Amino acid sequence: MRWCRFSVGNKVSYGIVEGNEVVQVAGSPFGRYRRTGARLPLSSVKLLIPCVPPTFYAAGVNYMDHVRGMAAISGRSASPPPKADIGYRANNALIAHGEPIVLPRDATERTEYEGELVVVIGKQAKHLSEKEALSCVLGYSIGNDFSERTWQFGDRTLWRGKNTDTFKPMGPWIETDVDLDKMRTIVRVNRRVMIDFATNNMIFGIAHYLSVMTKYVTLYPGDVVWMGTDGVPKPVKHGDVVEVEITGIGVLRNPVVREGA
Amino acid sequence: MRWCRFSVGNKVSYGIVEGNEVVQVAGSPFGRYRRTGARLPLSSVKLLIPCVPPTFYAAGVNYMDHVRGMAAISGRSASPPPKADIGYRANNALIAHGEPIVLPRDATERTEYEGELVVVIGKQAKHLSEKEALSCVLGYSIGNDFSERTWQFGDRTLWRGKNTDTFKPMGPWIETDVDLDKMRTIVRVNRRVMIDFATNNMIFGIAHYLSVMTKYVTLYPGDVVWMGTDGVPKPVKHGDVVEVEITGIGVLRNPVVREGA
Repeated sequence: MRWCRFSVGNKVSYGIVEGNEVVQVAGSPFGRYRRTGARLPLSSVKLLIPCVPPTFYAAGVNYMDHVRGMAAISGRSASPPPKADIGYRANNALIAHGEPIVLPRDATERTEYEGELVVVIGKQAKHLSEKEALSCVLGYSIGNDFSERTWQFGDRTLWRGKNTDTFKPMGPWIETDVDLDKMRTIVRVNRRVMIDFATNNMIFGIAHYLSVMTKYVTLYPGDVVWMGTDGVPKPVKHGDVVEVEITGIGVLRNPVVREGA
Repeated sequence: MRWCRFSVGNKVSYGIVEGNEVVQVAGSPFGRYRRTGARLPLSSVKLLIPCVPPTFYAAGVNYMDHVRGMAAISGRSASPPPKADIGYRANNALIAHGEPIVLPRDATERTEYEGELVVVIGKQAKHLSEKEALSCVLGYSIGNDFSERTWQFGDRTLWRGKNTDTFKPMGPWIETDVDLDKMRTIVRVNRRVMIDFATNNMIFGIAHYLSVMTKYVTLYPGDVVWMGTDGVPKPVKHGDVVEVEITGIGVLRNPVVREGA
């Protein structure tokens, strides 16, 4: 099942995507819902971010090729992280499929995409074993952990390097039925393939992360966990269009614009 | 004006604290509201966290005595941060005035309070000058940035060291009328004063932080910015009661319990 969140006029609704149509629902996938009689052409609705997370988690470094490649660029260690210590991103930066990533005037040219699998939590959960961990997952979406590298490596925290307004595209929807081992994550810039990796080839897998996290933190419906990216991203500039495709989910597409350009 | 958020039965409301009573309002301080006819004894309502932040910001290191004291303990640098780079905390960890801070079974004995001023954003804001920065502030509350130090210094991120469930008491309410320069922050454990500092004696002041932040991020109503603590906290244990008092706001009081004790 494919859940989207959309607006028509002033109203925000959840919907179920079926082919080229959206079946409007009353309620949400995080609680009770019922299908309404309304069916709308997918092309007629404005897609929103598929949920507003109470907490926005991000694994950060979680693929070996990315560890090695970024180490070469940043001068930092090429060692993988020793433990599944989760990090955070911020809601102000979230934008939907189709919306522009806006580069601030003073951003350098080192502004880069990071295509990522997004785990969307469906049920409140604490103390999950690794075996049962995926039972709290509603489904999967796509994220672009867009980054300004000079800020990322130069500031004390990841605030503007990762969380400048518009730096976190997420969408286009949540897919509940996936085969993690068959997924590939493909990043294209202006339709050219830049990065292509096996989505589930993580240093710490989803079940491991959720199990470790829920020893200490309660997960809530709508929380998201971004699982990291692989490969070595390249800079993008004003006028580029970035697409992140993940097998079985879809394509997250966002244009890049320079503020004031 | 003193805004609280509370529950009576199954209903959650905002209220205005007047003496020992709460005037129930319809709406919230972040939008439109009106006073209802209901007045309730303050002692009869269950206070909740005064808002649920869309984004939960924290300055972290922002007072010089804390920089020097923590450097001695952690072996890290005694230099103050060179810039006002904001950090983050997580909503799962928030608890209200009166609720217990729960130490996980595997937490060490290095579990410590950090009494902090909390800035509560009232209006959406971007690109604020330092001069106009405080115009987006609704009021001020009190936070306890409770920390497990071995996790804080040993993990790759601040996730469980700072954001284990119950580690972020916030409340008891939001005070809109304060004199920042006259405030003192006082931390007591079992009624004994442990730390007492001038609240506004920050390395980077509130207006500076908000101005720098809003160059890159939009602040939204209900966002909170925790401003850091001063001094060198001491460990607390099962059975202790921690109070953080800030002049003109009130007292945030939380008991400490060890899981399974």
